[in-house]
Amino acid sequence: MLYLGQVAVVNENLFSTSLPEYRIEADTFGELKVPVDKYYGAQTVRSTMNFKIGGPSERMPIQVIKAFGILKRAAAEVNKDYGLDPRLADAIVQAADEVAAGKLDDHFPLVVWQTGSGTQSNMNVNEVISNRAIEILGGKLGSKDPVHPNDHVNKSQSSNDTFPTAMHIAAAKEVHEVLLPGLQHLHDALHAKAVEFKDIIKIGRTHTQDAVPLSLGQEFGGYVQQVKYSIERVKTAMPRIYELAAGGTAVGTGLNTRIGFAEKVAATVASLTGLPFVTAPNKFEALAAHDALVELSGALNTVAVSMMKIANDIRFLGSGPRSGLGELCLPENEPGSSIMPGKVNPTQCEAMTMVAAQVMGNNVAVTIGGSNGHFELNVFKPMMIKNVLNSARLLGDASVSFTDNCVVGIEANIDRINKLMNESLMLVTALNPHIGYDKAAKIAKTAHKEGGNLKETAIKLGYLTAEEFDAWVKPHEMLGPK
Amino acid sequence: MLYLGQVAVVNENLFSTSLPEYRIEADTFGELKVPVDKYYGAQTVRSTMNFKIGGPSERMPIQVIKAFGILKRAAAEVNKDYGLDPRLADAIVQAADEVAAGKLDDHFPLVVWQTGSGTQSNMNVNEVISNRAIEILGGKLGSKDPVHPNDHVNKSQSSNDTFPTAMHIAAAKEVHEVLLPGLQHLHDALHAKAVEFKDIIKIGRTHTQDAVPLSLGQEFGGYVQQVKYSIERVKTAMPRIYELAAGGTAVGTGLNTRIGFAEKVAATVASLTGLPFVTAPNKFEALAAHDALVELSGALNTVAVSMMKIANDIRFLGSGPRSGLGELCLPENEPGSSIMPGKVNPTQCEAMTMVAAQVMGNNVAVTIGGSNGHFELNVFKPMMIKNVLNSARLLGDASVSFTDNCVVGIEANIDRINKLMNESLMLVTALNPHIGYDKAAKIAKTAHKEGGNLKETAIKLGYLTAEEFDAWVKPHEMLGPK
Amino acid sequence: MLYLGQVAVVNENLFSTSLPEYRIEADTFGELKVPVDKYYGAQTVRSTMNFKIGGPSERMPIQVIKAFGILKRAAAEVNKDYGLDPRLADAIVQAADEVAAGKLDDHFPLVVWQTGSGTQSNMNVNEVISNRAIEILGGKLGSKDPVHPNDHVNKSQSSNDTFPTAMHIAAAKEVHEVLLPGLQHLHDALHAKAVEFKDIIKIGRTHTQDAVPLSLGQEFGGYVQQVKYSIERVKTAMPRIYELAAGGTAVGTGLNTRIGFAEKVAATVASLTGLPFVTAPNKFEALAAHDALVELSGALNTVAVSMMKIANDIRFLGSGPRSGLGELCLPENEPGSSIMPGKVNPTQCEAMTMVAAQVMGNNVAVTIGGSNGHFELNVFKPMMIKNVLNSARLLGDASVSFTDNCVVGIEANIDRINKLMNESLMLVTALNPHIGYDKAAKIAKTAHKEGGNLKETAIKLGYLTAEEFDAWVKPHEMLGPK
Amino acid sequence: MLYLGQVAVVNENLFSTSLPEYRIEADTFGELKVPVDKYYGAQTVRSTMNFKIGGPSERMPIQVIKAFGILKRAAAEVNKDYGLDPRLADAIVQAADEVAAGKLDDHFPLVVWQTGSGTQSNMNVNEVISNRAIEILGGKLGSKDPVHPNDHVNKSQSSNDTFPTAMHIAAAKEVHEVLLPGLQHLHDALHAKAVEFKDIIKIGRTHTQDAVPLSLGQEFGGYVQQVKYSIERVKTAMPRIYELAAGGTAVGTGLNTRIGFAEKVAATVASLTGLPFVTAPNKFEALAAHDALVELSGALNTVAVSMMKIANDIRFLGSGPRSGLGELCLPENEPGSSIMPGKVNPTQCEAMTMVAAQVMGNNVAVTIGGSNGHFELNVFKPMMIKNVLNSARLLGDASVSFTDNCVVGIEANIDRINKLMNESLMLVTALNPHIGYDKAAKIAKTAHKEGGNLKETAIKLGYLTAEEFDAWVKPHEMLGPK
Repeated sequence: MLYLGQVAVVNENLFSTSLPEYRIEADTFGELKVPVDKYYGAQTVRSTMNFKIGGPSERMPIQVIKAFGILKRAAAEVNKDYGLDPRLADAIVQAADEVAAGKLDDHFPLVVWQTGSGTQSNMNVNEVISNRAIEILGGKLGSKDPVHPNDHVNKSQSSNDTFPTAMHIAAAKEVHEVLLPGLQHLHDALHAKAVEFKDIIKIGRTHTQDAVPLSLGQEFGGYVQQVKYSIERVKTAMPRIYELAAGGTAVGTGLNTRIGFAEKVAATVASLTGLPFVTAPNKFEALAAHDALVELSGALNTVAVSMMKIANDIRFLGSGPRSGLGELCLPENEPGSSIMPGKVNPTQCEAMTMVAAQVMGNNVAVTIGGSNGHFELNVFKPMMIKNVLNSARLLGDASVSFTDNCVVGIEANIDRINKLMNESLMLVTALNPHIGYDKAAKIAKTAHKEGGNLKETAIKLGYLTAEEFDAWVKPHEMLGPK
Repeated sequence: MLYLGQVAVVNENLFSTSLPEYRIEADTFGELKVPVDKYYGAQTVRSTMNFKIGGPSERMPIQVIKAFGILKRAAAEVNKDYGLDPRLADAIVQAADEVAAGKLDDHFPLVVWQTGSGTQSNMNVNEVISNRAIEILGGKLGSKDPVHPNDHVNKSQSSNDTFPTAMHIAAAKEVHEVLLPGLQHLHDALHAKAVEFKDIIKIGRTHTQDAVPLSLGQEFGGYVQQVKYSIERVKTAMPRIYELAAGGTAVGTGLNTRIGFAEKVAATVASLTGLPFVTAPNKFEALAAHDALVELSGALNTVAVSMMKIANDIRFLGSGPRSGLGELCLPENEPGSSIMPGKVNPTQCEAMTMVAAQVMGNNVAVTIGGSNGHFELNVFKPMMIKNVLNSARLLGDASVSFTDNCVVGIEANIDRINKLMNESLMLVTALNPHIGYDKAAKIAKTAHKEGGNLKETAIKLGYLTAEEFDAWVKPHEMLGPK
Repeated sequence: MLYLGQVAVVNENLFSTSLPEYRIEADTFGELKVPVDKYYGAQTVRSTMNFKIGGPSERMPIQVIKAFGILKRAAAEVNKDYGLDPRLADAIVQAADEVAAGKLDDHFPLVVWQTGSGTQSNMNVNEVISNRAIEILGGKLGSKDPVHPNDHVNKSQSSNDTFPTAMHIAAAKEVHEVLLPGLQHLHDALHAKAVEFKDIIKIGRTHTQDAVPLSLGQEFGGYVQQVKYSIERVKTAMPRIYELAAGGTAVGTGLNTRIGFAEKVAATVASLTGLPFVTAPNKFEALAAHDALVELSGALNTVAVSMMKIANDIRFLGSGPRSGLGELCLPENEPGSSIMPGKVNPTQCEAMTMVAAQVMGNNVAVTIGGSNGHFELNVFKPMMIKNVLNSARLLGDASVSFTDNCVVGIEANIDRINKLMNESLMLVTALNPHIGYDKAAKIAKTAHKEGGNLKETAIKLGYLTAEEFDAWVKPHEMLGPK
Repeated sequence: MLYLGQVAVVNENLFSTSLPEYRIEADTFGELKVPVDKYYGAQTVRSTMNFKIGGPSERMPIQVIKAFGILKRAAAEVNKDYGLDPRLADAIVQAADEVAAGKLDDHFPLVVWQTGSGTQSNMNVNEVISNRAIEILGGKLGSKDPVHPNDHVNKSQSSNDTFPTAMHIAAAKEVHEVLLPGLQHLHDALHAKAVEFKDIIKIGRTHTQDAVPLSLGQEFGGYVQQVKYSIERVKTAMPRIYELAAGGTAVGTGLNTRIGFAEKVAATVASLTGLPFVTAPNKFEALAAHDALVELSGALNTVAVSMMKIANDIRFLGSGPRSGLGELCLPENEPGSSIMPGKVNPTQCEAMTMVAAQVMGNNVAVTIGGSNGHFELNVFKPMMIKNVLNSARLLGDASVSFTDNCVVGIEANIDRINKLMNESLMLVTALNPHIGYDKAAKIAKTAHKEGGNLKETAIKLGYLTAEEFDAWVKPHEMLGPK
């Protein structure tokens, strides 16, 4: 039972009497028992013993594992070009494809909190692919024959270049498959609302206080612009994510690889993913620093800022039903309170703002990790990619949830909007060009003090006539320059 | 298969043909299919449909669920005192105990990214306990009879006071069960090393540059002090964590509870956990703000800072084997590199420093969430407790891993320490009181320039005699004031 | 001469065209020109040449300089006990007092962005005190005779222990002189408002949505509790701030000091400041880590979280005048808009929330600095103390400004509060114990849908009589448990 | 009068005993005394009375004031096109030019911690320009005649669009005038070193442990790439900074402006600055959100991460002189220690890493401010721009200081580099392709254990001949793929 095996590792019951069958595998440190139903080997088992930190929810993100599948396939293909036995290469390709396809997810039990280079996860992948390839070729699991995890699966590679490569592949895929579609989905829904609401004139609010009017469509148009720029910002960060470290091997020199290996691997990964990956122009930078992930995380942080603003606005504009601003009616998705019946809460806004706060925190973790690399290697790799992937996934998923369960169902509460609009004192601003700032201010302050409306007050103060007021104060003419 | 059911929810295959059996449950929004093998009900199912954000690794931390089990038991006991049918109360107690014991973990599929009050998780708990209690009493699952999730399990409670209560219980338990023991374990191991190393005199380093000597025991003594203070800092934050919101109900007034309910629940929770919980003196603050969690997170952040320093020092002092500082020999736990044979890396230090960075990021997320509460309720609750628990767990686990797999096995490389000590120019400082700062500086700079040692240079410059040098420069006499 | 230009900027008109006069001073690196009207010497001048970073607003906080004055006086007194020529010691004491009193502020031009140990500021202080003491004793500025900056002013000290000592003195004084009084001032004003508002019943808001009632006094009582705890949190962090590094000298061993020096200096500083300073129990920790500042910054961060919540609530409750929540009337302090006449904005809330955001950012800077110490010395000292002092000062000042210009002038808008209260649907919660959750929910949802009020709807649905409604729904009885 | 005291502090000697003269100015709130030698008016004075937060070092950055000068000039020119009396317009232009040129810096006493829209600083500018223009035209200061601060200087503008415009102008100028030149300067110096060091082969270090060799030029090449990308990242964020809010007026609609005003102002600012400013395509977004500043701050954060890495590496590679890594000789700029003579510290690295930590903290403050805008206006504007400008300035200045005082003077310690290179065990990696991973590992581990060198050990183990070793292990052939 795969799931049991996994929990067993984490719960330290690995060698309990009820899981009877192991095979013996060895690494350079000695022999270890490996569950017979697992493709991983000694180094993976050793890592589970040495890093009991955080439990199952802290496992290496599966996106990294799948990205490794893509990379290992690409490397095998290129190695075949450079002379790797085609029989072995083809078996590696097949096994790597299975990893990339998520068919072997249960064979990757390691947590993020391991070696900072991700070496153990690279070896986990090497071991799984090696054993699976051995199986394909009719060999014996754990024999390292005919497919050796280091000599064949990891050929021309080092953890130090493969892990960064897998980080970039995983990040790029998550951005393209989850984040950008999610943001586009949100963008389109907000845009549709902006169009729908374009003729609804409402009071503006600055400093949370009443201000001059705008249309509800203009207000939503601001959100549309934020999401549009969110998409641009993420895309802007991608060129450096598309650069792959593969071919740098241990310190960036490319020792033990062949000339052209780096370029071919990048091209193969590009072909396999449909994304414009290229080989990193400077492999030393690509191993020792992960500024590209910090940059992407910074873009995600900016997206989170936009999401916080939008979700906050929507919940406040939808506040009520009777004691809030009440300009929007948000869809009712679930019972809102376990004690207050009939209450419906802006829960999608809450999920989104919580996600935003998490992304901002993740960005700090990524920043700190990125800044603490030393010499030829940054050793905060697993933590960094975990946070970047988490941010991208949460923002993407939350955008879809927020769109489908909130944005598309938002309705304008026209009666309420009109009522607030007509009571407002801020229309007085329209008088500035006619009677000057100081007199306009006097009207507004007097009306506020006496509870009256603007027109009556203005006339009473003798600053203008009723006709002038009607001619000058027209909310629908206050929505743009003249 | 419980695990399958869970994945099914997450993967949206809930209603696939191969999972045949459901019962129908309803909330105030309508009817929904609930898997027959699950105790949860309609509101939980509805949440899984409305919040498809992040996947299984983003589930509400199980510690919160277990804390809810404790709270719901305590509430049932107190409600019994206030007149709840003892038969119902006892069934609730039994069901709640099962939740607290982790026997029903598979019945809590909800993710953190839900309503910001945690209402849906409170209802998840209410539903599970209700149905389990109904089962105990021979009733029909989903019938809400004879144990209603709201009227009985949630009696005298609201999500708004129960979720903060569960947050505090969970945080306090994680601190006491994982974090503090982990820190104490690390403290004791470092202390043992400080004693072991007390007579080893070594070169000090300030600005990463050579400085005057100290003992290796003194150096480790600094780490011991940091961990000792880490423990103190965490403990200092606990008094406000021990304050429970229970009894505040929806907005802090305690509406629909009975006088004394709050105090009795806190006392019962204290009794059940052995921790000094009390009722919060101000329930409005306890619902609307989670400053206590921000405070605790700040303490965890400070612990992370200490851990980063200690782990960094140890990896640099253990750097080499031949081109680093090399004063410490760290235990070899695993093969260090997939390409560089024989290399052994400070992987435990790396895991610890990655954990530290994560905790610092988590602290920002908690800070932002804590600052954005509005009016009578903070709605970043699930996110906040997720991060606090994550930080506590990671620091606790990493402390144990770092201790067992690194600290206890650290050995001093005496030859190397002595060699560096004897070559050092900084012993010149011992001459300050005898010949003054300026002449001492001249000696050191001359020796540095000419590659000579201090004694020869000092004599050559005519500042002192060989006898004076030997009398004045004694490293073992440079370890303290006179 | 670049140096001249730079200083000219700092003090704006310091060097008019008539200032041709320098004296020559030397450090171990050579001779430099020093303005004749300045007490500082060669090392200070050299630092201004080497660190042209950020300009005048980035100078070492003057609180650190003044703290150095206290420390240098204390050290001189203790050194006198240990044999320093009383004539020199007394002159140092007098000069140091002038530094502590702020009389020589213009003689400290160095910026924060210098050596990370603060060595140059320590030398700046040594030079200024030395030259001023020389002047007092009738000597020649720059002669280092009869008072040598290193041999006498810095006697038994190192930058490595004096700078941390000055950091702690400065932080403790800022906390006691600015922050705590500011918070107490705010606490008292909020408390007075809570008392003033205790009988005003208003609608509560959770999830920004209408909720059950509470009194405005209870709402403000939550803020009072937050500020009360803010004060406690800051005080809780102080014991480790009261620990002084003085006596640790270069690496923590206390080399070149005398037994008892550390304790006597701490006692003298305590006496001079009236604060309970003690010597740090572990000097290695006190130099190599500044966890105590990280801890204090964490407390300040939590205070900022509380301030953000309170100020946000107040501005939203005061939003309007006609299209907001409008429950509070905030004092009008200034014209609110340059284009919208009559508009008055919650500017004090805005200043406070900006301060809160800054403090949260500062906390991250302090955290990163604190975590990156290496071996025997943390070299982020000036940056760390700058941020801690900035946070303490801003929070303290903003608390006073917010109190005096906003809180004390807040008035309850009773009419508005009553209107919202009476229209609310959430009073339905009072029916839960009488007719059950589901029926109560039905009433609220029906009333919401049809725009009716609760009483009519409840009767129409046949759930209760008018008499029962009046008997059961009494807002003033909904403010606590029964 | 408190206000006097405060200003006195700001300008130190501004008000000597002889200054008894005020003029009376009024805003809509009433009359106030204004110092006769100041151009500002009542609203500025009122702000100094209402916001006593933080003192002189917290003043609105002068770059913002100067940017306002540019904007006000541009607006006056465009207003002239639209009919503003040319005599007034020209006087405004002249006065605004003086503001932009820094000639009136003493007339801007306001602190950052004011209204969150920056309204008071906008009015400060309007008042100064108004009075200065009045003076130019021979009028009476404070008379608002013939140049009114609102009706003429602020014509077609609101604080809500002018402050964001000034923020973007100030940020863009600081980036172009300080940051980018500073980064380019650093880039070029590092590049020169990379070229200089290209033939020096040295040991690589991964996990802080010995690794396979690379050239020192390659190592510096990684830094060059980081700085090159730093420049790219900053430039990538600029397009959205070039978008100006001017023309949006109070809420983004452009009320009270003329069609074309926005475009013409942007074009004029572009012309005045030589930077490609354009009018923001969506003014609602431009007022309500400052995502563009968050984005830029994220780029600065990434730059800070790069700087931290580079400066850390250089100080560790330069550590010693005798007990560190010692591969680099850093220039000696100042006496390093007040107690340890002859010690020279990597102080430029320390200043740079402190700056990096500050920038990371600033980024969090900017993030929090950016996320908390509400409705039509973000009111964290002054705090946000303060932090962005601070980050840009510090990074720019520190880059120059680090370059001039450290990088250009770095020398390779060839003897040390060669010694470490030759002693290394990691050259064994070169044997992998020849004898396989497992045997290579055995050689390295054996040599490590026995203290021997690789060649002897390899031969002794019988894995190869001396000739083979010499043929296969050639450090200079290990610097790239084959």
